[in-house]
Amino acid sequence: MFSAKFQTFDETADPAAAAPRIAALRAELRRQGLDGFVLPRADRHQNEYVPASEERLAFLTGFTGSAGFLIVLPDQAVLFSDGRYTLQAREQTDPAIFTLINSVETSPTAWIEQHLPARTRLGYDPWLHTADSAEKLAKACAKADATLVPVEADPVDAIWTERPAPPLGPVVLHDVRFAGEAAEDKLNRIAGEIGKQRADALVVSDPHNVAWAFNIRGSDVAHTPLPLGFAVVPKQGRPALYLDGRKLSNAVRARLAELADLHEPDALTADLARLGATQSCVLLDQATAADALAKLVTDAGGKLLRAADPITAMKAVKNAAEIAGARAAQARDGAAMARFLAWFDREAPRGELTEIAAVEALESFRRDSGLLKDISFPSISGSGPNGAIVHYRVTEKTNRPIRPGELFLIDSGGQYEDGTTDITRTIAVGAPSEEMRMRFTQVLRGHIAIARAVFPDGISGAQLDTLARQYLWQAGVDFDHGTGHGVGSYLSVHEGPARISKLGSAPLKRGMILSNEPGYYKEGAFGIRIENLVLVIEAPHIPGAERPMNAFETITLAPIDRRLVDVSQMTADELAWLDSYHARVAETLAPLVDKDTAHWLAAATRPLSNP
Amino acid sequence: MFSAKFQTFDETADPAAAAPRIAALRAELRRQGLDGFVLPRADRHQNEYVPASEERLAFLTGFTGSAGFLIVLPDQAVLFSDGRYTLQAREQTDPAIFTLINSVETSPTAWIEQHLPARTRLGYDPWLHTADSAEKLAKACAKADATLVPVEADPVDAIWTERPAPPLGPVVLHDVRFAGEAAEDKLNRIAGEIGKQRADALVVSDPHNVAWAFNIRGSDVAHTPLPLGFAVVPKQGRPALYLDGRKLSNAVRARLAELADLHEPDALTADLARLGATQSCVLLDQATAADALAKLVTDAGGKLLRAADPITAMKAVKNAAEIAGARAAQARDGAAMARFLAWFDREAPRGELTEIAAVEALESFRRDSGLLKDISFPSISGSGPNGAIVHYRVTEKTNRPIRPGELFLIDSGGQYEDGTTDITRTIAVGAPSEEMRMRFTQVLRGHIAIARAVFPDGISGAQLDTLARQYLWQAGVDFDHGTGHGVGSYLSVHEGPARISKLGSAPLKRGMILSNEPGYYKEGAFGIRIENLVLVIEAPHIPGAERPMNAFETITLAPIDRRLVDVSQMTADELAWLDSYHARVAETLAPLVDKDTAHWLAAATRPLSNP
Repeated sequence: MFSAKFQTFDETADPAAAAPRIAALRAELRRQGLDGFVLPRADRHQNEYVPASEERLAFLTGFTGSAGFLIVLPDQAVLFSDGRYTLQAREQTDPAIFTLINSVETSPTAWIEQHLPARTRLGYDPWLHTADSAEKLAKACAKADATLVPVEADPVDAIWTERPAPPLGPVVLHDVRFAGEAAEDKLNRIAGEIGKQRADALVVSDPHNVAWAFNIRGSDVAHTPLPLGFAVVPKQGRPALYLDGRKLSNAVRARLAELADLHEPDALTADLARLGATQSCVLLDQATAADALAKLVTDAGGKLLRAADPITAMKAVKNAAEIAGARAAQARDGAAMARFLAWFDREAPRGELTEIAAVEALESFRRDSGLLKDISFPSISGSGPNGAIVHYRVTEKTNRPIRPGELFLIDSGGQYEDGTTDITRTIAVGAPSEEMRMRFTQVLRGHIAIARAVFPDGISGAQLDTLARQYLWQAGVDFDHGTGHGVGSYLSVHEGPARISKLGSAPLKRGMILSNEPGYYKEGAFGIRIENLVLVIEAPHIPGAERPMNAFETITLAPIDRRLVDVSQMTADELAWLDSYHARVAETLAPLVDKDTAHWLAAATRPLSNP
Repeated sequence: MFSAKFQTFDETADPAAAAPRIAALRAELRRQGLDGFVLPRADRHQNEYVPASEERLAFLTGFTGSAGFLIVLPDQAVLFSDGRYTLQAREQTDPAIFTLINSVETSPTAWIEQHLPARTRLGYDPWLHTADSAEKLAKACAKADATLVPVEADPVDAIWTERPAPPLGPVVLHDVRFAGEAAEDKLNRIAGEIGKQRADALVVSDPHNVAWAFNIRGSDVAHTPLPLGFAVVPKQGRPALYLDGRKLSNAVRARLAELADLHEPDALTADLARLGATQSCVLLDQATAADALAKLVTDAGGKLLRAADPITAMKAVKNAAEIAGARAAQARDGAAMARFLAWFDREAPRGELTEIAAVEALESFRRDSGLLKDISFPSISGSGPNGAIVHYRVTEKTNRPIRPGELFLIDSGGQYEDGTTDITRTIAVGAPSEEMRMRFTQVLRGHIAIARAVFPDGISGAQLDTLARQYLWQAGVDFDHGTGHGVGSYLSVHEGPARISKLGSAPLKRGMILSNEPGYYKEGAFGIRIENLVLVIEAPHIPGAERPMNAFETITLAPIDRRLVDVSQMTADELAWLDSYHARVAETLAPLVDKDTAHWLAAATRPLSNP
């Protein structure tokens, strides 16, 4: 009945393929005069989603997790992954070849310090590491009396015979009615920031920032409309844009030529060397710029300024058009969610739905809008114990029926031209237990504490994170992920610099969109997460206020499962928030949904304070 | 009737004295071949309280604030102080000589970068700056094309003719029944920590840490029982203690000789050079060790490890004896506070009390215990608008009557052998306004949120700070100081490393004592602060808890003014906390106070939830 177009459910791992590949790599390393090689799961841009042609780590090891790090030595191969992927790494890799290490317990650099044999020549591809991480690796090697050596050509590429071709997703113009600011104006602002930082030019190494600055989008990776490429923006004069020409139609090319000189990506190397040769001060983004870029500048005699790409901060603050777009996208996405939740409530109690069927239905409802460009990440669809796996991705192998008496957690989002969405709902199938309702209500109270927070200018997400956890802590429990991340505007669903977590040191500014997603996970039993996106706004007028205050406006619109709310645990203010949120959900979504869904919606959004 | 022994109310500033002193300093600088000099308000240990012989900044400028920084150049003298001291600096200094700068707006290093004339030879005394701060100054000078030059002999000392003698406060042994751990055991633990950090020796530059490690106390500075001196603790072997021999009785000397080799402070120089000459790795405390100490080690060829002195973390976690002592000290101090509050309630409505009279009465009540060694800092006694000055210190000149209709804020503490106290109460004199009650209740709710907080292991004070501010933020107001600081055990009332503030990155560990002191200040009108000390404890049993949780036990015992509580703003949980706190206050203090006070106490601690 339903099908998923943007998500697959197969297992791609073939543990048996690794042995010959690692052997071939070792031979190639010997040929290059190296003893070993370090390989992160990364492309040249440190992207979250990378094209198939950049999945070197999966090619070598079978491991497909989104974060991993491999150290290959003559007689051992060590694969690091974090707690999210411990199980997955074990299942996807050959234990005869790989030693698996939890990177939270022992980082690759710590391992190198302690275990790397002295005098090892350890190769690395400077395009796949930032300058910071290359420096840390070099230090660790030095402590082990070994040497970190940049390779000229990636040794994995040399042995990867059936490597997929690099993507050539067409570049499209992102209409200014969505972007809200002409690329010319953005580029002027960026040049101003470069001047303020006393740099001569900025290398834009993050394709999200290229996309934002030039008002373009692409389709080179899954789930994020990225045009892979680079840009160089000088303090004064014409920017340069490095994109594969085959991705550009004549119309797009003509528009971009108004903004910048267009070059093939290969030309970047020579251009950076030229910048270096004029002793320019080049601003490189600390978080995403490859070590290779830094070397190009410094080897040619240029000066580096390693700091945050100023575009990252500019992009995070949404303008009026982007905010209007976000609201429209949220209403559309909320209508699809309401259809899904109504359908789920009808179907699930029969006990015949599966996690995959739920994903397929939800994506279909989103596609029915006619405006869905992609999902914003693979939906996390976990019933019962699978809901407790924070980064669960359902496959044909793990797929499981959704049974009455269980909780079902679904975390999903859509990419629309006017906005990116991200929402998690936890739904009771049949009668929930008292424990489920207690924990759900504790999570909900934390969610509401963030939603209702009022805070002065300059406050960071780190300072708010505790509000989401306080009721869980009082109950002796916690959750092991951040409370919220920034969200792009038809860009990445995980966008910096702000986040609501103990690591979120960036101040929250009006116009930023973040997620608010506290949770609770009982291993082997159930998972709970309640996620809405919130927009940082000026706090509504407060009588007697002495300072400018900010607040969050919740922009995600979909019912929160009333059956899981223990009203006796909630304060009057909390209930009032929930009822008022539900009233807004009903009012906005009712006109957008079919009659059956509208009927369900009215019941699902009834106030709880006057039952 | 009452008098203060430990606090004075005079103005020591004589702005007219500065002109000849600065002129003499400039002559001395020329003699030393220098163009200028930088001088912080600091002694060799970066102490908060410094002896009169180290008050170089006050001698030169007249300014007596606890934080300041002077730059003297041939034709200008610039005095930096922070917002707390803007007014005071203006009143105490000669405007013809000094340019005053708010260091929060322009730091001394920023000023140097922008304004220091090129080729200036700027002198500094390496004993009065840490290595970190000397490095920052040197960098700033380099940017201005100038040079920072360490002096051989402090030029201020050369011109300070009537300089007070250095203090010779007798050193006393801190009984192990208060300290809870023999100095031998502490020194063994410290040596273990030094080994763990792979250092050969630790230079203990912070006299608080010397006092803690050797179980000694002194009286070289006001309000903190510090024996000024240094120690060197080797990874293996016998420590060395550098104390002026005139401070040691035969008995104290005999005991200390069991623990360490005793030397005059002058001997440290040669001993550090000797350590350096053996290429030892010397651990120096980043926060307090003078640049001169670092130079001694490195000039002799030694290796420096600049990190936190491990004693700082050990000292912060109080043992069972120290906790028992703190409880006893709090009961004793609470009884004095109750007497004071009862007396104040009788006397103040007549409108004849002054801020100074209140300080004198409170100190007298504390002294009546027979066990008060000192006050732990000069009491902040502010009525009406003076209460809004966060670091107000009353003098004969600022002293003001306490009038009906005003709020009175008193922040004070005692030094007892078994513990250090710090408490702030805000008291209504006559009928408070609705605004006062509203703000007091907002502050109180934040105070209670901290007092009731439950949090996992590893959580820092930065993560809790927002709990104290949330209700003020909702009302559009805030306070501009941290929520809490660590407190020593018969040591400094401001003790690191933990604090409850956005800068408090140290995890809160069981056994730490911190203050909980949110506030609100309306300039020109009134100030509110409610401060209790709290002890980090294991959270009482929580059914269903999955993780070890910590909580705070409030150990300060004194009534919080019920007349200022707007019960309608409080939740049932908050009222229950306040009533239960008051019940504990009444139960503990009633047996310790006179009949009149007991009578007052019973009324002042009546429950609010069943009025």
